[in-house]
Amino acid sequence: MNPRIEILCTGDEVLTGATVNTNFSHISQKLGDAGLEVVWGTTVGDDRETLLEAFLRAGQRADAVIVNGGLGPTVDDLSQEIAAKAAGVELEFNADWFARMEAYFARRSRTMPPSNRKQAMLPAGAEVLDNPVGTACGFAVDIGRARFYFTPGVPRELHRMLDEQIVPRLLARLGRPSSNRLKRFHSFGIGESRADGLLAGLESMVPDGSLKLGFRAHYPQLETKLTMRGADADDVARKLAPVEAEVRRRLGNFILAEDDRKLEGVVLDALVQAHATLAVVETFTGGAIAARIAPQPGAEHVFRRGIVSRDLVEVARSVGLDADTVSGELDTAIAQSVARASLQATGATHALAVLVALDEGADRLEFGGTVCLAIATADTVVSRRARLLGGREWIRLGTIELGLDCLRRFLQQLPVDERIDFEKV
Amino acid sequence: MNPRIEILCTGDEVLTGATVNTNFSHISQKLGDAGLEVVWGTTVGDDRETLLEAFLRAGQRADAVIVNGGLGPTVDDLSQEIAAKAAGVELEFNADWFARMEAYFARRSRTMPPSNRKQAMLPAGAEVLDNPVGTACGFAVDIGRARFYFTPGVPRELHRMLDEQIVPRLLARLGRPSSNRLKRFHSFGIGESRADGLLAGLESMVPDGSLKLGFRAHYPQLETKLTMRGADADDVARKLAPVEAEVRRRLGNFILAEDDRKLEGVVLDALVQAHATLAVVETFTGGAIAARIAPQPGAEHVFRRGIVSRDLVEVARSVGLDADTVSGELDTAIAQSVARASLQATGATHALAVLVALDEGADRLEFGGTVCLAIATADTVVSRRARLLGGREWIRLGTIELGLDCLRRFLQQLPVDERIDFEKV
Repeated sequence: MNPRIEILCTGDEVLTGATVNTNFSHISQKLGDAGLEVVWGTTVGDDRETLLEAFLRAGQRADAVIVNGGLGPTVDDLSQEIAAKAAGVELEFNADWFARMEAYFARRSRTMPPSNRKQAMLPAGAEVLDNPVGTACGFAVDIGRARFYFTPGVPRELHRMLDEQIVPRLLARLGRPSSNRLKRFHSFGIGESRADGLLAGLESMVPDGSLKLGFRAHYPQLETKLTMRGADADDVARKLAPVEAEVRRRLGNFILAEDDRKLEGVVLDALVQAHATLAVVETFTGGAIAARIAPQPGAEHVFRRGIVSRDLVEVARSVGLDADTVSGELDTAIAQSVARASLQATGATHALAVLVALDEGADRLEFGGTVCLAIATADTVVSRRARLLGGREWIRLGTIELGLDCLRRFLQQLPVDERIDFEKV
Repeated sequence: MNPRIEILCTGDEVLTGATVNTNFSHISQKLGDAGLEVVWGTTVGDDRETLLEAFLRAGQRADAVIVNGGLGPTVDDLSQEIAAKAAGVELEFNADWFARMEAYFARRSRTMPPSNRKQAMLPAGAEVLDNPVGTACGFAVDIGRARFYFTPGVPRELHRMLDEQIVPRLLARLGRPSSNRLKRFHSFGIGESRADGLLAGLESMVPDGSLKLGFRAHYPQLETKLTMRGADADDVARKLAPVEAEVRRRLGNFILAEDDRKLEGVVLDALVQAHATLAVVETFTGGAIAARIAPQPGAEHVFRRGIVSRDLVEVARSVGLDADTVSGELDTAIAQSVARASLQATGATHALAVLVALDEGADRLEFGGTVCLAIATADTVVSRRARLLGGREWIRLGTIELGLDCLRRFLQQLPVDERIDFEKV
């Protein structure tokens, strides 16, 4: 029988709905990716009585419980106190963790406020779960029949602790029923139902039922996930190889990266490989395309210049074009002129110009924008027009991804004008 | 004593984290706005045994339970079936609702698939909760000591049913116990423990215990939250006013916005009010500062130009400065020169230059960066130096916020060089 794993989220901000509970979905996904199924979720506020009730109930029925939140230094952070009470032990001062916290503050040339001492108080006998990026001390303790793992509410602290401390402990404790691997493909431009259709029958490539296909749509990208179980790592790799190849064949040019790789990293690598330098010109996206490329390690030698303006005349001026060149309705010829001129103005080998004409009026679901983009080098220029709908923010996000993905396609010598599901013809 | 209200979310999508549970936060917020406090949340998957367990447990302890999801036509939609079982009644065909569904399909010139008949099967004796925008039938039924309200998972159907059917019924059934309000302050530059210290004793300003203080750290900003209860909205407003004033006094210049306002909106409004136009020059932040300002409605008349480069010589060239001006170690004099020159180059009334010198070597927790920023107008120039630590991404996020917040301070005639907790001296 599968172990029973529960997630217990604490905090008035999630209970009252002031914060959308993305920590819950993150934890559940990460455990699922490791082949560990979550069967129950509980959300309670920063209230002693309710927390105790929640801890005791989960301790009666679960094998493992991930608790999130309540490890901070303030008066409404109650997790250690209630964990100790539920486990029937005292709180103890952990001198090692306290020293860690002092060092953390010292590295930042700050004095630790007295209230932070509270973060070094742990239930007696608790196992410390390291938090290399904050002062909240994670810990594990038994309550009832379950092992409880306490994690901080700050997402980046939670994410590291989950990956490095908790998932390995859960796999060791609950048994790794079999080998398990998650293979991920990232795409832009195909919706979940189209991808589902393109991959119809994929699961039956592995007749023993050990392959599971799933999707996660996080606009504007779609993640296609294969979970493969097998006797051991070799067995999994052997069964997975032909399935991976089939996914690559069927999703084709839409796959922009696999596993932990990101679109901006793929683009930067392709630019480095081509010994290229890049100029980016943007309007409505406001600098967000440049901001995906420029801060990456290594981009200092590749990213030449980014130019942002909401005004096409100002765009023209900043790349040395006449205002006349950009007058009239936005079209791909204007985008081409701007991309070509920005090569001249910046000395870059590659230029990406992403220009947007937004609809008039207030934001609404049918609000649309017309994107005209161009990519220029000394020898060639390509362009693409797309009409996006769905409100300002939807258009902004879609345009950023479209610009970056067209640049990827250009650098990988793929067509830049393959139709995407988000565009209206 | 307040009635005990619970939310019970069903569905593999939310349990596995494939979907972030925004329905939960919506329901909890809407009830909170009506003065109805949610004390417990449960999330379970599409599994008969677990659903029954969840319904029975909630029925033992709650006065009212809002159930979300599981009312659709497919085999994994189990809410009516399990509700009937938990209530100890049979499922009954509801001819009225079936006719409503047929009409719904007819209006769209479609034939209703046979599987939809399932949506007209309700627990015997259930009260129908109208759904004017879909085929899922909401209903209310008693399980244990609680009244259960079943709602569809489709957000727009849920939203209408909650407003029109459920909140009025809850208020009629449970009485309007008290009024409740959440007041939020957003700050940059003070950590949670410092804010906690600055606001020590605040709760005792309201001796009846009806004020609750809380924090939410989402780096680089901190949210300070006051929750106030009272007999009615007037009572809450009367008690909250002096507390709000006290928070503003104690957190002072660090408060950048309140409630739903955002830093970038505050900055844009201040620029509009000053009839100003803005140029932004960035290096390591890569365009992310511009990207917070430029896409906003109205920014097309204010945001003049953004310039991004990772290379200071390229920065100098793009604002018409000699390369000599930016040679040597980065300092605030360079930032001032760049800001001043960008006024000239763009014709803007205000210029913000945010330059960063990153440490050498691989990313690590102690990896640091030195930020030199300047804000120039025709008459004046101010500058600020800060040393940030914590790894590349932490520095990037901190620098973006520091740049925007210094601009806010400048526009609000506040000191731009007040020390922040994230900086090392």
